[in-house]
Order: sequence, then structure tokens, then C-alpha cells
Amino acid sequence: MSFNIEAHVTHLCEQLAENAVARDKTGGHATHERELIRDSGLLTLAIPTRFGGLGQNWHTTLNVVRRVAEVDSSMAHLFAFQHLQVATIMFFGSEQQQAELLTQTVQQRWFWGNALNPADNRSRAVEVEAGILVNGLKSFCSGARGADSLLVSAHLESNGKFVVGAIPANRQGVQIDTDWDAIGQRQTDSGTVRFSDVLIEHDNLLLNPGPNGSPFANLRACLAQSILINIYLGLAQGAYHEARHFTRTRRRPWVNSGVSSAAQDPYLLQRFADLWLQLRTATVFADLAADKLDAAWLKQDALTDEARGEVAVAMVEAKILAHRASLDISSQLFDVAGAGATHSKLGLDRFWRNARTHTLHDPLDYKLRDLGNWALNDVYPTPTSYS
Amino acid sequence: MSFNIEAHVTHLCEQLAENAVARDKTGGHATHERELIRDSGLLTLAIPTRFGGLGQNWHTTLNVVRRVAEVDSSMAHLFAFQHLQVATIMFFGSEQQQAELLTQTVQQRWFWGNALNPADNRSRAVEVEAGILVNGLKSFCSGARGADSLLVSAHLESNGKFVVGAIPANRQGVQIDTDWDAIGQRQTDSGTVRFSDVLIEHDNLLLNPGPNGSPFANLRACLAQSILINIYLGLAQGAYHEARHFTRTRRRPWVNSGVSSAAQDPYLLQRFADLWLQLRTATVFADLAADKLDAAWLKQDALTDEARGEVAVAMVEAKILAHRASLDISSQLFDVAGAGATHSKLGLDRFWRNARTHTLHDPLDYKLRDLGNWALNDVYPTPTSYS
Amino acid sequence: MSFNIEAHVTHLCEQLAENAVARDKTGGHATHERELIRDSGLLTLAIPTRFGGLGQNWHTTLNVVRRVAEVDSSMAHLFAFQHLQVATIMFFGSEQQQAELLTQTVQQRWFWGNALNPADNRSRAVEVEAGILVNGLKSFCSGARGADSLLVSAHLESNGKFVVGAIPANRQGVQIDTDWDAIGQRQTDSGTVRFSDVLIEHDNLLLNPGPNGSPFANLRACLAQSILINIYLGLAQGAYHEARHFTRTRRRPWVNSGVSSAAQDPYLLQRFADLWLQLRTATVFADLAADKLDAAWLKQDALTDEARGEVAVAMVEAKILAHRASLDISSQLFDVAGAGATHSKLGLDRFWRNARTHTLHDPLDYKLRDLGNWALNDVYPTPTSYS
Amino acid sequence: MSFNIEAHVTHLCEQLAENAVARDKTGGHATHERELIRDSGLLTLAIPTRFGGLGQNWHTTLNVVRRVAEVDSSMAHLFAFQHLQVATIMFFGSEQQQAELLTQTVQQRWFWGNALNPADNRSRAVEVEAGILVNGLKSFCSGARGADSLLVSAHLESNGKFVVGAIPANRQGVQIDTDWDAIGQRQTDSGTVRFSDVLIEHDNLLLNPGPNGSPFANLRACLAQSILINIYLGLAQGAYHEARHFTRTRRRPWVNSGVSSAAQDPYLLQRFADLWLQLRTATVFADLAADKLDAAWLKQDALTDEARGEVAVAMVEAKILAHRASLDISSQLFDVAGAGATHSKLGLDRFWRNARTHTLHDPLDYKLRDLGNWALNDVYPTPTSYS
Repeated sequence: MSFNIEAHVTHLCEQLAENAVARDKTGGHATHERELIRDSGLLTLAIPTRFGGLGQNWHTTLNVVRRVAEVDSSMAHLFAFQHLQVATIMFFGSEQQQAELLTQTVQQRWFWGNALNPADNRSRAVEVEAGILVNGLKSFCSGARGADSLLVSAHLESNGKFVVGAIPANRQGVQIDTDWDAIGQRQTDSGTVRFSDVLIEHDNLLLNPGPNGSPFANLRACLAQSILINIYLGLAQGAYHEARHFTRTRRRPWVNSGVSSAAQDPYLLQRFADLWLQLRTATVFADLAADKLDAAWLKQDALTDEARGEVAVAMVEAKILAHRASLDISSQLFDVAGAGATHSKLGLDRFWRNARTHTLHDPLDYKLRDLGNWALNDVYPTPTSYS
Repeated sequence: MSFNIEAHVTHLCEQLAENAVARDKTGGHATHERELIRDSGLLTLAIPTRFGGLGQNWHTTLNVVRRVAEVDSSMAHLFAFQHLQVATIMFFGSEQQQAELLTQTVQQRWFWGNALNPADNRSRAVEVEAGILVNGLKSFCSGARGADSLLVSAHLESNGKFVVGAIPANRQGVQIDTDWDAIGQRQTDSGTVRFSDVLIEHDNLLLNPGPNGSPFANLRACLAQSILINIYLGLAQGAYHEARHFTRTRRRPWVNSGVSSAAQDPYLLQRFADLWLQLRTATVFADLAADKLDAAWLKQDALTDEARGEVAVAMVEAKILAHRASLDISSQLFDVAGAGATHSKLGLDRFWRNARTHTLHDPLDYKLRDLGNWALNDVYPTPTSYS
Repeated sequence: MSFNIEAHVTHLCEQLAENAVARDKTGGHATHERELIRDSGLLTLAIPTRFGGLGQNWHTTLNVVRRVAEVDSSMAHLFAFQHLQVATIMFFGSEQQQAELLTQTVQQRWFWGNALNPADNRSRAVEVEAGILVNGLKSFCSGARGADSLLVSAHLESNGKFVVGAIPANRQGVQIDTDWDAIGQRQTDSGTVRFSDVLIEHDNLLLNPGPNGSPFANLRACLAQSILINIYLGLAQGAYHEARHFTRTRRRPWVNSGVSSAAQDPYLLQRFADLWLQLRTATVFADLAADKLDAAWLKQDALTDEARGEVAVAMVEAKILAHRASLDISSQLFDVAGAGATHSKLGLDRFWRNARTHTLHDPLDYKLRDLGNWALNDVYPTPTSYS
Repeated sequence: MSFNIEAHVTHLCEQLAENAVARDKTGGHATHERELIRDSGLLTLAIPTRFGGLGQNWHTTLNVVRRVAEVDSSMAHLFAFQHLQVATIMFFGSEQQQAELLTQTVQQRWFWGNALNPADNRSRAVEVEAGILVNGLKSFCSGARGADSLLVSAHLESNGKFVVGAIPANRQGVQIDTDWDAIGQRQTDSGTVRFSDVLIEHDNLLLNPGPNGSPFANLRACLAQSILINIYLGLAQGAYHEARHFTRTRRRPWVNSGVSSAAQDPYLLQRFADLWLQLRTATVFADLAADKLDAAWLKQDALTDEARGEVAVAMVEAKILAHRASLDISSQLFDVAGAGATHSKLGLDRFWRNARTHTLHDPLDYKLRDLGNWALNDVYPTPTSYS
């Protein structure tokens, strides 16, 4: 018995591509497509085989994210966040919690959602006998809507500690708003989640070692960044392929260009050279960063701060390249494809809108500062939720 | 009795701004807003006082276009095309045709539409006793829908000559499609016009001197380019002002930026410097080009090829700068404003979508080639419909 | 009797051009060329006619600096610094000091040198009965060597006040080192001046109002920046003209370019477009800034902080553009001219070396910060020696 | 017995670094340093062990070139051209010629020079009984002066065929001019070689398969490009390391930067991020290209046009990145290091002058065209001497 990942990825991408343009226009919740993702069997891609998952490394998992993002970066986002939540349990939780939650994830076919935006400190918790009670809210909770399970975070009122726990999405007191309506990434349901006396039991608090608990736990931010990198890169790839296809099949030479086909236009060739080079450098560095992540992952608790720092630097390099590639290629696709590419039914502006929205996750300028501090001063990025 | 242009422009811009975001989303025909433009009295801005118009020079007229584009670049497009048609009558038509058509434009409050896309040679004409009969079609006929009068172009079957004429928009045989649906400039109605045995009478054929009839007639392309320049620039200005307003009122400093307000962030200051400089250079060159256009306009039939060439070079310079400014500022507005600016209800992506769509009118690469040919070889741009 | 400025500038430039390449290689002191400058009669360009000078405004004076920089940016530097010292007497000194020193400058044909580098605080002064005694040193004293008169600055030991005075260059205790040997601006003699008990008499201390004494006194930094702007711009112009000349006369088409002459190469045309546009924007903004400086200069003591701030902003804009233009054009000249342009005897690398050296005067990054602070926060550049 | 390459490279680099700045200033022939290179034993790096050489692959050999270029790009050029001539014998010559010439190269410690500039067709040959007689000249003959052996090329008068042969450098009729004097790469002796009835015997004509004789023979251009890539990259690396060292040890914070050390300046950190990223992408792609070259080299006569095309594409990618990195880093080193770095005795401008000179070898614009043609049209670069 073998699961053909490649075939399932290809099938899923074809399914999502069918109406990706239409769904971008309407936005909102992608009930059906979430089920397609679930049915693909790929939700367990990153879950170790000992828990029944497909046990793939990050390089493979992130390449699948990238491929999905090429056709539908909203679904890629939800899909990737599944793996981020799964990994969070492995980064922050005990072996027993991992066994419990991940086995169930496989068996119950859980789709995980995110309610732990670390930049939003409006959710607060108090300790009670059974565990903690959470009140307040979190913004940008991508994938919470429609999820089976959630990772939730809050600051303890008593000591300010940042804690993360796992709960069923239908846990009493959880209200998931439908307030996400952005110019891009329109079906990520990245809205607000509100908590009213929401209980997280002791067993489901990920405290061993918990956030910032070890160099290995700090590797979570590197994984989170690598997901962004691969979504940006998928967008760049998708835009590039559309640009190439449109130019080859539809573009006409300019009236006084002196060439008989657009494919021979000297300036279009030049533009394609730079688009290709931007895509290619971003791709090579995303893959290098993924390999470094895999090597660090294998070290588990033996991971040192230095080794984690090396991964963080690789992520910054790849992030800057992917960020720029996604924006530049998605905008320049129109320069090469020409005015005909602006027809609304083609929806080719969605690459730029998706990239533009998602690249604001954390500022490029501070990625550059981190990289500069490493390049000039030999200082690794300070471990935070973003670096 | 004096007509306060400034007050009317301000009022019109306020009216258009009210629902510009909403209208960008729905697209389609702006029946009501076209009437607001008509009611502003500004449709006669460029018509000489001897025909009852406001008699403003191009510098002033183009600055009004720019201001309208700042809030609504679709309406600015329709508004600007009124002046382009009016000017076309003056570039190509006899004094008697000017008197006739422009006096009526003032008295009947005509809104002119465009059906003369020179890049589309699918409209053909045959000569009949009363004038010519046009068959075929034209694409990208901005403003034709809802217009009172149209300028129409066709190639004569007999000798290939390119002719332009003026007809009422409801002339028998004219069918104006509602097929414009682009990612930007969504209310310009830049769809297809179809002709079935449409008659243009001898009196309404603009043959004296007609297209390419004299250096002065060739100045039309410079005016057409200057309209694009000022719409791009208006978009850049609008995006810049939104960026600045949002950053000042809403942006928070990044978590580990070390500054207490976004307004002191070193990288945001740097970004604003470059955005401002791009806007400012584009503005200065657009104004310089408009002044050169005015000076050339005053020369009328005494205009030489060289003097026309100087205007064309100024247009190329201004066009490149405005093109780049509109795209860069409308994309970077998000880098400075941050993730909060992506909320769909703000509609801040419309600047980029409008700029992206409209900057494909004619390729930047060939503007650069024209400028390079002048810079290196002292050759003025060859007069065409685009240069 | 009229002095034909144009003819004298042209003649001087021709003289300097003759051996500019050779003098760049040897570096060192340009005894003979300083005399050519003196003999040109142009040292009194900015001195008011009431003191016997040519009484030209800054626009004219700076354009002469620019033209000289086109052929010899070291000599342009020395020449420009004459006008800066002359102006410093007018910015900081009393009417009587102006009358005295500037009349003598005309009559004795004085060439002024600079020993007041405000960024170097190693010269200190004590008050004595006759005036002040200066000890210590100053670096980057462009033009001190070979000068007749010097402007000298020092900080008073008693209260830290920054004072400026005028002395003969051969004043006892002044030692002018010959230690300037840089990769560019090789004949500016921008070395060290050492002071041993150098007396500056009361009459020659420029205390009315002195540095930072009024908005008008603060305009001196704007003039200093405008000199840099016009030297950078002259370098850009010189590089551009050499690039164009070499390409037109010597460049051959690339082997498989498909064109028969380099002048038709699509990529060379593109490069020239961008070089030209960079040169042209820098030129227009340098002229705009000079006009603002002239307007502010005419206001003299009535100049407000706001009006001075407007000039400072115009200088920042022009400086950024000229800085970038000088570096980009002087490097890209080789891309357009090709390998043949690297022959050492042509000395075409001097434009880049000169620009590279001189553009480090004060950092571009902080010019951008100043401009950003104005663009985002409506804050004028804080008056300093550089802004 | 083992030859410690690493130790010999380090020692050679140290020796060359000692007076590299001084030799850049004087230019001319580096008699002594050529002997240091010869004495390093590294001239046989790429010669197969079966002929007595060190038998290293291209990845290793090119990395040595890169390291030498970091301290002295002129010597790196001469050193690299040794390997290019050695390889040319393997690309174009028979097994017997390889055995003969390469064994002697090892045994006689030959230093090879280049007189086969394929872009210069002024050397012509006639067939005689003993071989061919060459007359005419070749420009840009790097390393010919001081060489023991030369590769020479000429076009046959009879049929225009391009032939390459090996001769002793002191062969009668060969005159090596000392006319190389460029702004950079000043000790490469890339001057003119003149031929007067120079005999190349049949045995020394490399006709099996000769230039353009097979896909493997066409791989020579890929190796030639990879040498350029690694010299550019060495220059970029050298400039980067100097920039970093100078900034860390000498740069002071700007007066109103608000930071206490340059190492914390936000804009310097940003600049270092971009410099690092440019260096790093160029490095990764140079190594990828070298690995592809090695894989293709191993295929020898089994190499297909497609496989050769893949290498050519990798070279174009790496070349564009290295070209840009060398120019940008060598110029921006001054922005980060500041005015103090312009002192002539430091000679830090030599990186830019070397890069600027050597990057004109073949135009970047046509590298971009080749890459664009591949990206858009799936067309491999046409095999030429440059692609």
C-alpha cells in the first residue's frame, strides 16, 4: 500500500484551479474546497508515520504548499496552516500530547485552524481547577472558521505568560466571526475569534516546553516563515506561468517594433530574463532554507541556538527573495502579457492582490534589518514569532 | 459673470469621491456620475471662448483631469476624452466644422465619446454620394456608451486612407456594446462599437487637414499622451495621499522597531522620501510637458515638425515618469500603510488596478526606445497615434 | 564695458579640458590651473556689484560651477568654494566686514580657501585681547593650499561657541599640509590645516550674526549643498556627453545583435533613455532649487524659518537626484561605450571616481531621512552644516 | 604524497595580497607574481592525473580562481586562462595532442597564454606543407606576454575556417606588444599579438574535433564564461569583505543618526542586507553552474546539444548575477565604508575598476536576451564563443 503524493497533489490542484478565479471574486468561506483538501489525504503530510501520518519532511511538505499556492493561494494558506498547527503540537507539546492529538488528527481527519496570533494580545486567561479560562479575542485567525480543532493562545493574567492550547473548534464560548474581507487571500477566513470563558484543560495546554521553551521550540517561527516563503513563491510561480502562457499564445508585437512576433520582441525577452531570474533565485533559496529546516528538525532537543540561528538566516534570505519575486512578477506579468490580460474574467490581478496582502504579514524592512545585523555584526535574528 | 473653475472642480471631486470605492467594485456604466460631470460645466473647459467655451489652456485642463483622476480615474478618463474629441475637431477639422460642432457642444451640452481607436483597423468605409458608409467595429471605445456624439474612424476601402468623422451617438447602424469588464478603469465603458452601414456625411468628415495632415494635426497624439500622463499622475497622487493619511492616522510601529510611533520609523521615512520624489519628479515633468503643448498649440499651422518633435520628447519623458510613479506608489502604499490597509471596504487596491490597466495603453518599452533614439541619435519620435 | 561671462566660462573650460585627464592621474596641486581660474575673472561672479563684483545670482553662478565640473570637477570644487567663502562673509559678517573683505577680494584678486570643516571639532580657540588664538587642526580643507585668504573656524574653549573668521593664508602659525591623495577629486587639495597660536583679530571674526545666527545665516548650508549638487550634476553631464560621443563614434554593434550599427541597438537605446532621463530630472531639480535659493537670498534678514525650510527641502530633492545621476551615469557610461572605453589614456573612469569620492560628503541615507520626515511629517530639515 | 591545495592557495593569496594595491597603480607586467603562481604548483590544477596534473574538477578549480580574484583579479585572470588553454586542448585536440601537450605542461611547468580572441578576425592563415602560416594580429591576448606556450587562432584564407593551434611563445614571427593599459585588470597583459609568417605545424593544430566540432567542444564557451563568473564573484567577495572590515573598524555614526555606533545604523544594516544577498545569490548560482559544468564535462563525447544547452543556461544565470554583484558591491562599498575609504593608499576603487573593465567582456544585455529567449521560447543559447 502506497500513497502517491504526487498524484494527489496534482488532482487537488486541478480541482482547485477550476473555479479559483470565481472564488477569488466572491471571497468568503470555501466549504467545498476545504473538503477537497481533506479528501486529498494530504492533511497528514507532516504527521509522523508513528502517529499514522504520511511522515514527509518539510522540504516535501512545503513544496506541496507551493504547488497549491500556484493555483489558489488562499487554499494553500489553509492547507499550510494545518501543518503549522500539527508542528506546533510537536514544537511545544509533550510526546503524550503529540501522540494523542496527532493520532486523532489522522483518525478523525481533523482540519486544524489557527487562533493564536502572537501579535494580538487581547486574549487573556485565568487559571481554574480544570485548566485555564480564556476571554477576549484574536484577530487574523486564518482557517479557524470551518476547522475541527483550534490552537488558541492567551496571556495569563497572573504572570503574563504566553500559553498555547488545543481545543475543539466547537468548544463552548468560542465565536468565530465572518469578518474577513480583504483585497487578497480572500478565502483564508482570517477573521476574528472571540472567547467567552473558554476552557482549555490542563492536558491540552502545550507547556512542554511551550513557546520559547527551547531552541527547538523557537524553530516554530522558522517554519511559520517558510510557509509564507512558499506561498509567496507559489504566487510568483503562478504569475510567471500565466505571463508566459499568455505572451506565447495571445500577445501581438507592438505596431512599430519591427518584429513579426511578440516572442522575438527584444524588450519582452529582456523582461522574461529578469522575471525568470527572480523566480529562479527565490526558488533555489526557498529550497535551501527548507533543507536547513529539515536538518534542524531532525536534531530536535539537541538543536542549539546557533544552529537555529543558521536556519533563521536562511529563512530571512529566502523570505526577502520570495517577497520581492511575488510582487514584481505579479505586477510585471501585465507588462509582458499586454492590455488583453486585464480582462476581469481572467482574474490575473489576483496574483498581485494575494501577494500584496500576504507580504504585509511582517515588514520586509525588518527582515532586511535582521539580515544586515547578521551580515555586518554576526548576530543571529532574535527568536520571536516572526524571526 | 465669471465661472469659478476651482470651485466647480472641487465640488465635482467631492461628489465623485463619495462612492468611488463602491463604483469601482460594481464597475459598469456611471450614468449618474456622467451627469454630475456634465452639470459641473467643465465639459467646455477646452473649447475656445469664441465658440462659447471656457477657453482654458491645456495646462489648466490637464490639471483638472489630474485632480479628478486622484479620486476617480475612470471618470477622469471619460472627462479627459471629452477634451480630446473637442481638440480632435480643432486638430483635424476646418474652421467651419469647429464653429459648428463646438458651438453645438456648448449649447447642447454634448458629452463626446470615442470610437476611433487607431490601433484597430477593423472598421472600413466606402464612399457614397452623401459621404461614407462605415462597417465593421472598433474596440476600446472609451466613453462611447452614454455619449451624445462620437468621433468615428475608418479606413477607406478604395485607398486605405484613415478618415475621422463626427456623428450623433444614436446614428442608425451604431451599436455600442457593454462588454467592458477589466480589472481596473472599470467605469470607462471602453468596450466595442459596431457599425452597420453607418453614414458619415461629407460635412462631418474631418479632412482639413485630417489625421497626419500637418505638424499641428500630429500634435493630437501629444495631447492624447498628455491625458494618459495626467491620469497616471492623478492615480499616483491619490495613492500617495491615501498612503500618507493612513500611515499618519493608523499605522503602528513594528514590534521590535525601537521607535514609539510609525512616523519615526527610519524605514518608513526612507520609503516616503522615495515615494515623494517619484511623485514630485513626475509632477514637474507633466507640467513642463503641458506648457510645451500649450506653446505648440498657440502656433497652430505655423508649428514645425521640429517644434512638434520637442513636444513629443517632453511627453515621452513625462509619460515614463508618470507610468512608473503610478505603479510604484500604488503598490508601495501598502508597504507604508501596513496590513490594515488591505481591508476590502477601503478599496485601496483600486489605484494599482487602475494604473496597471491604463499603463498598458501603449508599451513603456517603446516609449523608452523613442526617448533613447532621441537622446543618442537626435531623432524625434516618429509621429504616430501614440508618439 | 561689459564682461562676457559665457565667453570666459567657455574659454576656461577649454583650457581646463586640455590636460584634465593627465592631471587626474598625477593629482596634487594645480598651481597653473588655479591661475587660469583667477585670470578668467570669474572669481568675483557672486560678489555684489556694489563691491566691484560681477553681481550674478546663484542660478548663474551655480551653472558656471556645473559647466566647469563637466570637464574638471576638482577645479570646479575650488572655484565653487571661492563663492562659498564669499557668501559666508555675507551670511555671517557685518555690512562693514562684507565691504572690506569683498572689495579687497575684487581688488587684490583673492582666491579664498576653506579651513572651517564643521564636522571636525579639533580646532579650539581662546580669547585674547586682540581677538582669538586658534590651535589644533581641521581636515578636508579644500582649496586652502595656494589660497590668498582663508575662512577658519574653531570652538571657543570658554563656552564651546563655534566661531568663524577670515585671515590671510600666510598668517603666522598656519600650516597647510599636502596630504590629500584620494581616489577622486584629486586636485582639490582637501588636506589638513594645522593651527599654532593663530590670531584672528576682532574685526575679522564673523559674528554678526555668525553661524546659526538667523534663518538667513542658516541658508549657508543650502548654498553649500547646492554646490555639491551642481558638481555632481556636472560630473553626470560630463559622463553623459562622453558616453554619447563614444557610442556614436566608436561603438560597434554586438556580434549577434542583428543590427548594423550600435546606434540602432535596442538595448543601447533603452540605456540611453534611462541615462538621459536621470540627467534631465537631476538638471531640472537643480535649477528649481537654485531659483528657490535666489528667492530666499533676496529676502536677506526677512527670511523666515519656513521659507528657509522650503529651500532646504528643494536642496534635498535635488541632491538625491544629482547624487544618483552622477554615480549611475558615470558607471553605465561603460555599458554603452563598451570595452574600448576602458583604455587608461581616455581616463573615462575619472567621472565615477570623482563622483564616488565627492558623494560621500554627507550620507545619502540621511538626505532621504530628511526628505521622508518632511514628506510624512511636514517637518523641515533641521538646520545644520549639512541640511 | 599529497599536494595540499588549500594550503597552496592560501599561501599564494597571501603573497599576492601583499602588494596588490601597489601593482594595481603601476600596472604593467607582473613578472615576479607570475613566478609565484607557477611556484604554487597550481598551474596543473585542471590537468588530468593521467598526464601528471592535479586532476581537480571545475568546481574546485573555479573556486581557486575566485579566491585569487578576491585579492588580485589580474593574477586570477592569468591563472584562470592557464586552465582555459589546458581545457581548450582537451576540448579541441586529439588524445595524442592532449597527452603530448599536457604532459609537457606538467613537466616543463609551462604557463600558457592566449592569442585566440575569437571576436578579432584579423589573423589569417595559409596552408603550407609543414602546417599553416599565420599573419595578422589579435587583440586582447591576456597572458600572452611572459607565457611559455600560446594558443593561437586564425581564419584560413582558403575556406574561412577558424583554426586553433599551439606553439611556443618564442616561435619566430610572434611579436607580443606591451600595449595593455586599461583602467582595470591592469596586469593581465591583455595587449596585441602580431604574427609574421608564424608557422603552426600539423601536429599542433587542434582539429579533432576543433572549434564547434561537437557539443563537447562547444562546452569550451561555457568554461570561458564560468571563468568570468568566478573572477567577477571574487571581485564582489573581495569588495564585500573590505566593506565589512572597514565599516566594523573605521566607520563612525553619522552626526544626527541617533545611534552610538555605525554598526547599529539602520540604513547601514539595510545596505549590508542587500549587499550580502547579492553576494550570496551570485555565489550559490556560480556553484550550481560549476557543478553542471562538471557533470557535462564527464560526459565528454556523449554530451548532447540539449545537455550542453542546460549548462549554457546555468552560465547565463550565474553570469548576470555575478556581473551585477561585482559592480554594485564594489561601488556601494563606499556608501557603507564612508569618505575615509577613498584614501588612495587603500586602493579600494580597484574592485570597481577591475569589475567595470572585465564585465565589458561581452554585453550583459545579450546575456539577458539569451536567458529571455530560453525562458519565453525554450530556446537554448546558440553556441558561440560567448554563449
